[in-house]
Amino acid sequence: PDDEVRERAIARHAQLTKPAGSLGRLEELGAWIAACQGTCPPKPFERARVVVFAGDHGIAAEGVSAYPSEVTAQMVANFLAGGAAVNVLAAAAGATVRVADIAVAGETAPMVSKYKVRTSSGLIDREDALSAEETAAALRAGREIADEEIDGGADILVAGDMGIGNTTPSAVLIAALTGTEPVAVVGRGTGIDDQGWIRKTAAIRDALRRARKVGADPVGLLRTAGGADIAAMAGFLAQAAARRTPVVLDGVVVGAAAMVAEEMAPGSREWWVAGHRSVEPAHTVVLDHLDLKPILDFGMRLGEGSGALTALPVLSAATKILAEMATFADAGVSGG
Amino acid sequence: PDDEVRERAIARHAQLTKPAGSLGRLEELGAWIAACQGTCPPKPFERARVVVFAGDHGIAAEGVSAYPSEVTAQMVANFLAGGAAVNVLAAAAGATVRVADIAVAGETAPMVSKYKVRTSSGLIDREDALSAEETAAALRAGREIADEEIDGGADILVAGDMGIGNTTPSAVLIAALTGTEPVAVVGRGTGIDDQGWIRKTAAIRDALRRARKVGADPVGLLRTAGGADIAAMAGFLAQAAARRTPVVLDGVVVGAAAMVAEEMAPGSREWWVAGHRSVEPAHTVVLDHLDLKPILDFGMRLGEGSGALTALPVLSAATKILAEMATFADAGVSGG
Repeated sequence: PDDEVRERAIARHAQLTKPAGSLGRLEELGAWIAACQGTCPPKPFERARVVVFAGDHGIAAEGVSAYPSEVTAQMVANFLAGGAAVNVLAAAAGATVRVADIAVAGETAPMVSKYKVRTSSGLIDREDALSAEETAAALRAGREIADEEIDGGADILVAGDMGIGNTTPSAVLIAALTGTEPVAVVGRGTGIDDQGWIRKTAAIRDALRRARKVGADPVGLLRTAGGADIAAMAGFLAQAAARRTPVVLDGVVVGAAAMVAEEMAPGSREWWVAGHRSVEPAHTVVLDHLDLKPILDFGMRLGEGSGALTALPVLSAATKILAEMATFADAGVSGG
Repeated sequence: PDDEVRERAIARHAQLTKPAGSLGRLEELGAWIAACQGTCPPKPFERARVVVFAGDHGIAAEGVSAYPSEVTAQMVANFLAGGAAVNVLAAAAGATVRVADIAVAGETAPMVSKYKVRTSSGLIDREDALSAEETAAALRAGREIADEEIDGGADILVAGDMGIGNTTPSAVLIAALTGTEPVAVVGRGTGIDDQGWIRKTAAIRDALRRARKVGADPVGLLRTAGGADIAAMAGFLAQAAARRTPVVLDGVVVGAAAMVAEEMAPGSREWWVAGHRSVEPAHTVVLDHLDLKPILDFGMRLGEGSGALTALPVLSAATKILAEMATFADAGVSGG
């Protein structure tokens, strides 16, 4: 983002008909969007897009989720039919939805499987999630999807996730990149019971032992302990930043991808805002590590981009404040 | 709100295509709207209305604000011209704006002065804010405005405030109703300096000494230490509750009126949600006292309904989730 434009936005805020600074975080967010767009006042969003990256995870077979893997493909169909939370929240926020099957175990509609890299990712507690070629293909898929969206006019992006078991590799990646212990990153995901929690913690521990062999190499981590969907999200987030397009981050899975993307392309995080703070403990580790302050703290844990989309209207309002409010001079109000 | 409908909304949430409870606070808010409407699924809002109650305060002459009283009438003109934060945020949230001059010092357009009770309210550190008749007239004005809006089809209401000096009587009312000391309720308002803070604290202390003579009588407090605009807001909030219409509360001034309304008509608070937590310290006293959990914590301190309107799209999204998402059975997804 352009710091000179950010300064101009802050100066403009002081001329709008309100006490200086009285809109608090809304002023910060508006100035950030202006800096991302490189223009002040910023332009209200014209094409907000959410891309849901879908993929299954071999580790789900070990009972780390409350749902079976078949739900991933069923939910992809639900997204296409318009019945899921992401559809409702996107419509409410003025955004449209794209679904990308990167590694769903089952079959999905041809319109969403163009970038499919493989069928499910590996059992990360005993094998690599992906081959080196698959990792590269998934990263490339994410970058290409970002390019397509930005070339298509998207001016604000959201990444969402769908994949039974995906909080397990996410927790591993976050633990590996921050030196955190398994018990501090394991969460209840979709709602596992205590036995499931124990299985999940053991899976994270074993996968983390394998992951630590690659050190801090972000691409190596995606290959060893990530998954194709998470790699694609990382590519998408890094490319959005390279293309100077702001992104609203969602919860722990997108957060794990964001941490990897920041390692691959340092400074990318300047182009991201945190939509919310998830209940997953590893998500708070991500927010602290990336120094991102969530817009909402709503106890959400769905994924699909749901938290980001719930926050998007707030970001949109922040943009409109700078674009549409009168100045003291315009309005003939004293004290500007 | 209807508890039986709330239970039905909670049961419906468990059938929608997402893990039970995974939308966190968004689920609570949706269930609350269903309970307010007495129907599940709830209907998305069709007519969101914000009413900005404008009034001046004699105490402003004592230097408790960073702005002169003339700004109140100038801002009313700005609201009518569409250039203020409330206009931009209302439009962004799909709401429309009504302005009611209850006690502005200067002259305002006839279309907004129908309910004007007097010109500015009294210097509360030495005299009553209002006569008994004026207090009754202001309460009645607020109730009538609520009736007009609800009869006109409003299904969600926001109260906003505009009035230089209005955080001073608000702090006094909040302190009087909660037994809080002046230094714990005084804030920077529009942005006063340290000298202004000292003057404001002294004004609150002196007004509180007068207010304590009426004890906990809410109407007596409005008369002694409130103001016509705040009394009108209290009438509006109590009447909205009586008419079973949900309200999104704003910051400290609306919060003071809400505390008074809850004293006048206990249980009214069940019909309100807190849009945000203001930086004014007295606002946190209000939220704790009314046991309301803010949607946003954004460091805002503008008034005008700005915090409530920034949060309104979140409430709207919560309503749509219950109204529009597919169930597990509809979508053919396993695990419902």
